[in-house]
Amino acid sequence: MPSAIHHDDVVPTAIPLKLSEDGMAINYDDPTSWNVTAAPAVYRSKNKIRSVVAGLDLTHTSSTKPLINLGLGDPTVFNLHPPSEASISAVQEALLSGGANGYVPGTGDRAACAAVARYHQKWDGVSYQAEDVTLCHGATHALDMCFSIMTSPGHNVLIPSPGFPAYETLLGNIQDCEIRTYECLPDRGWECDVEQMESLIDDKTSFVLITNPSNPCGNNMHPDHLRRIVALAERKKISIIADEIYGHMQWSEHPFVPLASLSTQVPIVTLSGLSKRFLLPGWRFGWIVLHDPSNHAHAIRHALHCWGNRIMGPCSLIQKALPRILDETPDAWFKEVVGKLENNAITCYDRLTRIPGLYCTFPTAAMYLLLGIDISHFPEFDSDVDFCSALVKEQALFCIPGQSFGIDNHMRLVIAAPNAVLVDACERLEEFCLKHYV
Amino acid sequence: MPSAIHHDDVVPTAIPLKLSEDGMAINYDDPTSWNVTAAPAVYRSKNKIRSVVAGLDLTHTSSTKPLINLGLGDPTVFNLHPPSEASISAVQEALLSGGANGYVPGTGDRAACAAVARYHQKWDGVSYQAEDVTLCHGATHALDMCFSIMTSPGHNVLIPSPGFPAYETLLGNIQDCEIRTYECLPDRGWECDVEQMESLIDDKTSFVLITNPSNPCGNNMHPDHLRRIVALAERKKISIIADEIYGHMQWSEHPFVPLASLSTQVPIVTLSGLSKRFLLPGWRFGWIVLHDPSNHAHAIRHALHCWGNRIMGPCSLIQKALPRILDETPDAWFKEVVGKLENNAITCYDRLTRIPGLYCTFPTAAMYLLLGIDISHFPEFDSDVDFCSALVKEQALFCIPGQSFGIDNHMRLVIAAPNAVLVDACERLEEFCLKHYV
Repeated sequence: MPSAIHHDDVVPTAIPLKLSEDGMAINYDDPTSWNVTAAPAVYRSKNKIRSVVAGLDLTHTSSTKPLINLGLGDPTVFNLHPPSEASISAVQEALLSGGANGYVPGTGDRAACAAVARYHQKWDGVSYQAEDVTLCHGATHALDMCFSIMTSPGHNVLIPSPGFPAYETLLGNIQDCEIRTYECLPDRGWECDVEQMESLIDDKTSFVLITNPSNPCGNNMHPDHLRRIVALAERKKISIIADEIYGHMQWSEHPFVPLASLSTQVPIVTLSGLSKRFLLPGWRFGWIVLHDPSNHAHAIRHALHCWGNRIMGPCSLIQKALPRILDETPDAWFKEVVGKLENNAITCYDRLTRIPGLYCTFPTAAMYLLLGIDISHFPEFDSDVDFCSALVKEQALFCIPGQSFGIDNHMRLVIAAPNAVLVDACERLEEFCLKHYV
Repeated sequence: MPSAIHHDDVVPTAIPLKLSEDGMAINYDDPTSWNVTAAPAVYRSKNKIRSVVAGLDLTHTSSTKPLINLGLGDPTVFNLHPPSEASISAVQEALLSGGANGYVPGTGDRAACAAVARYHQKWDGVSYQAEDVTLCHGATHALDMCFSIMTSPGHNVLIPSPGFPAYETLLGNIQDCEIRTYECLPDRGWECDVEQMESLIDDKTSFVLITNPSNPCGNNMHPDHLRRIVALAERKKISIIADEIYGHMQWSEHPFVPLASLSTQVPIVTLSGLSKRFLLPGWRFGWIVLHDPSNHAHAIRHALHCWGNRIMGPCSLIQKALPRILDETPDAWFKEVVGKLENNAITCYDRLTRIPGLYCTFPTAAMYLLLGIDISHFPEFDSDVDFCSALVKEQALFCIPGQSFGIDNHMRLVIAAPNAVLVDACERLEEFCLKHYV
């Protein structure tokens, strides 16, 4: 169990520095004539987790209990499950071969890209070639790359709310790009508000980003709902970025359906990687696959090739190992991991929905539970930030307030922990709520 | 010996797509109403190696000799020397520990950053703390990060010519940033033209970039020369980016002197990593160390922290291994590698300077020899591109034309190959020149 909360671990961060009125960086130095400034983009990169968590007082706790940190979206923190043997032995083989230390092509080693194409063909039922694949330093780098190449000054992009805070942080680097958020609706199991989405699209919309399964919502969207989204994108002629880093981590009644499998027209850029499903977030290994069945997105294909070569792709050892990792990690291993997550989801849902003042939708995918707080019953607290701040102080239980994800009066729990830890966390929450509920 | 030349291996690439007059991307599709464009930055990212090498006809060779590719700046291609045992066993230890698969802080694991600080303290004689270190996905990512945070719209930056082509490629992403090049002078052993450098600096100059030892020049600048540069930067109050990825890879009479060791005022951002000196380019592991002895560069320090957290740092396995890699790679191992490079430099210099129509300065560092071509004696060829094109066709010897690095009538040879391969290459060059020299 982690003994401390590292703010830096949680997310990309931004420093709240001052901007002059024209948005330029302000000179930081006074006493000398040195005028060392940073780029305006640095000051535009806001991060909601950072700014919200910075408001929490984490240094003083009145609890004698050991800290439970359910803030960090890292499936390795609690040793939920070991990585597959194939993942470890394949990297060891690459390391000891002595033949995987040199440069590989910027968009990825050919065999590694072919393995990604095979993997998505098997699991997603979409036909890909090695040329459709760009390897990246984790899915966050994949996002950064897509944002860099798929936006233009004066354009706008659509992202979900609540959503992964790094979307806004990374988009902050793009000059003159308007971020529009569409709602995910708690009373519809966190499905997207497709009517609102449509109303936000105009002829300057570069892409719609869909996160499925969702961080922080923990839902797996129904195939019919996904079809509506693809139909809208087709009608509006808008590309989709499908953030499917939690793809195939679902225990819902309906299957996980990759967006690309539904499109015959819409260019769909799908992001995935080893971080979540393979339980290897530190390896910084993600990828982009481009599905463009009607050849509308030549420009994106070329841009991916160009941008993939900017800083080159991820570690050669893991590129070399990737075919074995993807081909040889057994289906049974994935099932074990998802089985544990499902069991945790049931435990948390059962316990949390019994606690007065809390409510939630049963999570069916990914590794999160987005818990609603009926704040009117907790008059001591003005907001989810206050609530979470008191929770860590009194119960040594850390969760990230909903405000970090763009939704008030919620908190996100990571459920990728041993069941006993989550039972302990739920009991602390219950004790806390019973004390403060009015 | 590699059997083919992969253009993609050589460098970051750019696609020569059309821009409209206002610099916006042009719609690529005609037959449909889809209008999928890429960001203007994609079209601004030019790359000289790509564009120059694309002009070479590499598909037809009349030679029956096996190809010798001295184009790629990758010290592993010819197995010049194995990586240090410490490098391999430290990663194996991290992999098998099972404790290095999770997220680490974006700017780097604390122990890894401390190890980098120790390494530079030992080798550079500069005092660094872990907080001064930002880990990156290779030195190219370090460059990209520095360029992103240290430039502002309307500003200008100074880079060397001849120089590493990725500087311009990466700077192409920065909107409204003027690239100014200062000359490195062949008749002064490739030292910088400091007078010209001074004339290019104005109050909108964000930084001067110095590459030492130099790619492509293969020189190690004299300490007195470096002192002049630091004095100029101090007088003009300009920060320096010191690209020292080839630091300590010298066999010159004078030592390698890190720029940071000479400054008490000038903020110096030094780039280094495992790619060259440690012979591990594929691992994509580099770093930035900030030397700011008089605290002028708070803004850069904060920006590095912010940007380091954008896409997070390099592979956790190598971060975990880094203290052992840096602490336990023996000095004798470095000496063996540099000894081989020096021996190769002597061989190539002796043989090449005897060939009519060629001339060069004796390389004293890094892993390159920048060979001058007296093109007036080769009237069949209009340029170094023509010369190199015929060379690969007739002799199956590939080297990158000087135009790729911004200098005419030169070619760059990588000397990180077994001595026998270089002897063969020199003999092919001699045969080629004797045939075409007038």
